Amino acid sequence: MIDLHLIGIGTGNPDHLTRAAIAAMNAADLILLPRKGDAKSDLIDLRRTICGDVLTGATRVVEFVLPERDTDAPYLSAVDQWHDAIALAWRDEITQHLPKGGRLALLVWGDPSLYDSTLRIADRLCAEGLAITVTVEPGITSLQALTAAHAIPLNTVGAPVLITTGRRLRAGGWPAGVDTIAVMLDGDCAFQTLDSRGIEIWWGAYLGMAQQMLITGCLDEVANGIIQSRAILRERHGWIMDIYLLRRADHVG
Amino acid sequence: MIDLHLIGIGTGNPDHLTRAAIAAMNAADLILLPRKGDAKSDLIDLRRTICGDVLTGATRVVEFVLPERDTDAPYLSAVDQWHDAIALAWRDEITQHLPKGGRLALLVWGDPSLYDSTLRIADRLCAEGLAITVTVEPGITSLQALTAAHAIPLNTVGAPVLITTGRRLRAGGWPAGVDTIAVMLDGDCAFQTLDSRGIEIWWGAYLGMAQQMLITGCLDEVANGIIQSRAILRERHGWIMDIYLLRRADHVG
Repeated sequence: MIDLHLIGIGTGNPDHLTRAAIAAMNAADLILLPRKGDAKSDLIDLRRTICGDVLTGATRVVEFVLPERDTDAPYLSAVDQWHDAIALAWRDEITQHLPKGGRLALLVWGDPSLYDSTLRIADRLCAEGLAITVTVEPGITSLQALTAAHAIPLNTVGAPVLITTGRRLRAGGWPAGVDTIAVMLDGDCAFQTLDSRGIEIWWGAYLGMAQQMLITGCLDEVANGIIQSRAILRERHGWIMDIYLLRRADHVG
Repeated sequence: MIDLHLIGIGTGNPDHLTRAAIAAMNAADLILLPRKGDAKSDLIDLRRTICGDVLTGATRVVEFVLPERDTDAPYLSAVDQWHDAIALAWRDEITQHLPKGGRLALLVWGDPSLYDSTLRIADRLCAEGLAITVTVEPGITSLQALTAAHAIPLNTVGAPVLITTGRRLRAGGWPAGVDTIAVMLDGDCAFQTLDSRGIEIWWGAYLGMAQQMLITGCLDEVANGIIQSRAILRERHGWIMDIYLLRRADHVG
């Protein structure tokens, strides 16, 4: 029997860990840390730092190589195959390190609910008949790290907010029925494809980390600055994670 | 000069406090706790418990009576007047307890960005010319507490999510362009107004607290159970806070 604990660790500031996350890490027999290739070594370094910082007992920490997604294949089928491959990698580590079962913890960037696949990968192991119970510890998402860093509300009074992706924004334009949208997973500055008049943007990269960068303003005035900063920062650090909030100016405030 | 720290404290589980939240509480000269009337005394009790639990130094904790919103007036203007009244109440407490300035912390249920007015009320004090800097510590929202309790992802792969209110759902029906919606601030079970076929619901009340209650299933099968449970629980505890996620069944998984 595997007691799988998915632990949201926030977006890079170890002080965004909750007390429940720290307790769950210490209650685990094993923590698996994914290695994602050199470019994102900051991210595994950060998880290592967090483990070194909060673990006080006998929890073992094991690193494994995370399979990579096929970026040439169509998106949804590539994601599907990638999740299969990760499930296999987990199973190998479980077989090797917890042959008699036990408590396994995975440290999930942000929160396990938001644009993260860990829950879906765990479902694959359940579907294969592996005896697993899944428990989730919520963590601070990049969306909250963004609004906190800018000290802004996500929504205007009583109004809705759409959380979407760069891919969707690029394909569909400004979505119907909302004046505030939060855009995630955007590797390509999809805001460029909008008519920028009357739109305000709050952008943030490396939220919660030492290299955190924030830009805000009218989209038509700051879009180019964001595009340039993003390219420079990605070059400098070897990777970038960013997110932004867009609000139609009529509804700013 | 007032250094105002808005601290997200999660939805009722003191272990959802982040290390940054605990540090910010201890760094404050003064924490103001709002008293909301007898029915919601659990909520101020919880804030008191959190203060007793984490404060180790000289931080003073002062309770003040939170003005009530006029529930008979039109919604947006009532909210506006209510925020004005709260800003005045804060100013009185600041004048009395921090006459020479200092660090003031407010403990915000969930996270200060999401359907919370604390940032907007702070803006009123800034607009009046009070010298205030505002810093935000993100906290676990009820949305993350909901998805964690059900161990479900918020979004399906690459798909958007709309966060909206009961009022909006009741007025506008199922929103265009999304298959997943999170509904907050719904005192009236607005899901009843939808054609329930093919919709799955994950509902939670008192998330993170000892009295936490979860219901999930096909909306047409569990809607009445949620309505009844909600009425019974509100009667029993004197108040209720709940939230739910709806997903069109074609896209469940």
